[in-house]
Amino acid sequence: MIILGVDPGLATVGFAIIEKIKDCKSIDDKRFKVIDFGCITTLPGFTAGERLDQIHKQLTLLIKKHKPDLMAVESLYFFKNLKTVMPVSQAKGVILLSAAQKNIPVLEFTPLQMKMTIAGYGRAEKKQVQEMTKKLLDLSSFNMKENYRNKDDASDALGVAICAGLHNKFLVG
Amino acid sequence: MIILGVDPGLATVGFAIIEKIKDCKSIDDKRFKVIDFGCITTLPGFTAGERLDQIHKQLTLLIKKHKPDLMAVESLYFFKNLKTVMPVSQAKGVILLSAAQKNIPVLEFTPLQMKMTIAGYGRAEKKQVQEMTKKLLDLSSFNMKENYRNKDDASDALGVAICAGLHNKFLVG
Repeated sequence: MIILGVDPGLATVGFAIIEKIKDCKSIDDKRFKVIDFGCITTLPGFTAGERLDQIHKQLTLLIKKHKPDLMAVESLYFFKNLKTVMPVSQAKGVILLSAAQKNIPVLEFTPLQMKMTIAGYGRAEKKQVQEMTKKLLDLSSFNMKENYRNKDDASDALGVAICAGLHNKFLVG
Repeated sequence: MIILGVDPGLATVGFAIIEKIKDCKSIDDKRFKVIDFGCITTLPGFTAGERLDQIHKQLTLLIKKHKPDLMAVESLYFFKNLKTVMPVSQAKGVILLSAAQKNIPVLEFTPLQMKMTIAGYGRAEKKQVQEMTKKLLDLSSFNMKENYRNKDDASDALGVAICAGLHNKFLVG
């Protein structure tokens, strides 16, 4: 089963494509194989519509290339950052559209659910979640400098993809 | 010049297609001709992605049919209704995408700008704006019962389209 994790934004969309390994003999076995991860970035000189168009085009290309069975997206919560709620939601709308146009089901996870699933408790620091994400995945073969230019966004996308992969009840593949 | 006015929403998207008359001799002449107006509606039984896909498809069809030179969209303000900010912004993202995919420029107007432009002052009631909208447009040939099923949404779309039409500095046609 191929899972596409997405961290929404208008300037930067983090993405991660991972494969859930079907026959996992022991708890120490790697349960996931990372296929690709990185960021779609758009430039502030363009209109919102043009940036959304760039996101839609690039995400559609990624979907065409990797044929994910499932998309996982981080749910937004905006008690602290009301200013970004509109552009981030606009980007999320286009991301959900990209999935629907290819009949890909979408699972959403809140930051709390992500922390609980990956780090084991809801008050985990971002850094702890990132460390656990790296532990759960074998990222050594990737050029971290290249892929981690926008470290947090790509890491969140990997995290939300793992979340979807660990919630076995949804997974049939 | 053909103007497509849009009032964003996930359940209901109001739309209006009007034509700005080029040679307008007197202030009493009708400056606008209404081509079509109404609502795109989506049903709650579908996922957000599916509803956004329906909006994208139907709006793209309207654009293909009427070939607007300009899109006008109401800007969102959410001091009062924080709950709807995310779904409405998601719909707006898909609406802006539909315009960008056909290279249609977009103008945005706040509710205050709309009230100022149409009713003459910023504290006008919704009903006053609707009455002035009807006055500015000749709506007698339309089946009001049919088109006005979702009266407020369609009326806001007509209003924002008029706003774009009256802001002549943007208009070259």
